[in-house]
Amino acid sequence: MRAVVFDNELKLDKNYVKPSPKGNEALIKTKMVGICNTDYEITLGYMGYKGVIGHEFVGIVEECADKSLIGKRVVGDINCGCGECEWCKKDLHRHCPNRQTLGIWQKDGCFSDYFTLPVNNLLEVPENVSVEEAVFTEPLAAALEILEQVKIQPIQKVLVLGDGKLGIIIALALNASGLDVTLVGKHKDKLAIAQKQGVKTSLLDEIEVKKEWDFVVEATGSITGFETSISLVKPRGTLILKSTIVASKEFNFSSLVVDEVTIVGSRCGRFQPALRMLEQKRIDLKPLISEIFDVENVIEAFESNKRKDTVKILVKF
Amino acid sequence: MRAVVFDNELKLDKNYVKPSPKGNEALIKTKMVGICNTDYEITLGYMGYKGVIGHEFVGIVEECADKSLIGKRVVGDINCGCGECEWCKKDLHRHCPNRQTLGIWQKDGCFSDYFTLPVNNLLEVPENVSVEEAVFTEPLAAALEILEQVKIQPIQKVLVLGDGKLGIIIALALNASGLDVTLVGKHKDKLAIAQKQGVKTSLLDEIEVKKEWDFVVEATGSITGFETSISLVKPRGTLILKSTIVASKEFNFSSLVVDEVTIVGSRCGRFQPALRMLEQKRIDLKPLISEIFDVENVIEAFESNKRKDTVKILVKF
Repeated sequence: MRAVVFDNELKLDKNYVKPSPKGNEALIKTKMVGICNTDYEITLGYMGYKGVIGHEFVGIVEECADKSLIGKRVVGDINCGCGECEWCKKDLHRHCPNRQTLGIWQKDGCFSDYFTLPVNNLLEVPENVSVEEAVFTEPLAAALEILEQVKIQPIQKVLVLGDGKLGIIIALALNASGLDVTLVGKHKDKLAIAQKQGVKTSLLDEIEVKKEWDFVVEATGSITGFETSISLVKPRGTLILKSTIVASKEFNFSSLVVDEVTIVGSRCGRFQPALRMLEQKRIDLKPLISEIFDVENVIEAFESNKRKDTVKILVKF
Repeated sequence: MRAVVFDNELKLDKNYVKPSPKGNEALIKTKMVGICNTDYEITLGYMGYKGVIGHEFVGIVEECADKSLIGKRVVGDINCGCGECEWCKKDLHRHCPNRQTLGIWQKDGCFSDYFTLPVNNLLEVPENVSVEEAVFTEPLAAALEILEQVKIQPIQKVLVLGDGKLGIIIALALNASGLDVTLVGKHKDKLAIAQKQGVKTSLLDEIEVKKEWDFVVEATGSITGFETSISLVKPRGTLILKSTIVASKEFNFSSLVVDEVTIVGSRCGRFQPALRMLEQKRIDLKPLISEIFDVENVIEAFESNKRKDTVKILVKF
């Protein structure tokens, strides 16, 4: 089968061995995959991962112990827990210390004609949600993870920093949750995507850099973005780190203590609230799609993902 | 009058001008002052402060609009807010952007025969609390600030890192609040102070450095302490930064995101809960006192504070 493999370099392998589902796993035939910046970071060495990449997908169940799922369109939680530790027992398998993570850690990802996931990780895509919409379930779940972690009051002011795909999805998701959200970035056309759905927006060089925001969500993925975020969060406010900033940076922590700022790291989220939001059409993510490539042109798709004028790149199988 | 002044160097000035209380201020005659590590950091350049240092005190009210306070033993909140901003209106004057802070920022401190504070900042010391105990109100309030900021469940495990005066006070305060506390440090005799009041203790090189603590309180004031803390807090756990780490350090934030760790900066607290804890004798801080110096020997007192074998140094007037 075809598989997009990273092993020092990224390539399309046309003779990768088709996986066999084990135990409680389903075999899934891939329909659509989204490129996440984590995929790009893996090609730069993140997590030291080697293998098939990809973790945002819509697929069709081809083999599965639960026969009712066969032929169904599914999305799926990318973290596969051991099922027995304290984390798995608390329904927090995404923190299981022995977890495998689809296309990121010790498990081949979904950038291939077929892949496997435990059947418990799968959710059927509601009929009224298209494949192009459903492929956003994973990043939308990650955006909504913020609301599982912190309580944001409707009267509080939220600034999302970064108008890349992650920042736009977070801004739309929080706005659709009834919050007071401003998206700040460097690209008028990207900001416009969020603005059309009711999000307040501003160019970075047009906002006053002042400690006056109750919540700042760092979604730039850059160290300078982190530093700007710190300058925007008010005393006793919260900075949510939503992107894995791989670079190290000298940082003086004393201002966090003086201003009693809280920093919250935030990663993957639950799929159910994300699918519900898509099903209820409270958010439209299709305007984020810059281009859909055929898997045969996947290397070109990754090049397109790197360009500043693109938002979401999808790859169809 | 006598005043301990920092201006490039620390010295006892015997001819400092006695302050005149203005507006709502009381004039206080100093009885006892505690040396805090922040005082030491000021002598290294922290906040760029110059003037009379000192912020932990017990004094006697000498002049005051509220005549009922004259002659009373008092302690006092060190942050003086403007009284009109959103912070002051929410009873959070310790975050007032225009605040003055006793002996730390734009206001002469209490290391002098007399000093002034707004009368609203003062609290009378209960009869059954000695001067040697009451002088700990300020650092005890700072320890209890943690419980204003985060909710710690009685079943959760708290590790306090650092067996200096700050760490011991935090461990005793959280333990006296019904929490499951372990104090970890490098000094058997210092750990013993907390152990005698029911705190679990361990030498640093005898604990397993493993991400298994729900809450870790960083009270070492060193960058290596910060790094150790990060290695001890469990996924979804909370690291409380209680000391102003002035040094900068290269730091990679991605582990915070992957483990969804929360970092909470924590500074000054309210005095009422601290005084209540002292009044009810739920905590005994007298064993922390290593030595009480006369103000005439204050430079020697500061030298003693720097030694690894001392805990709390007090200075009497």
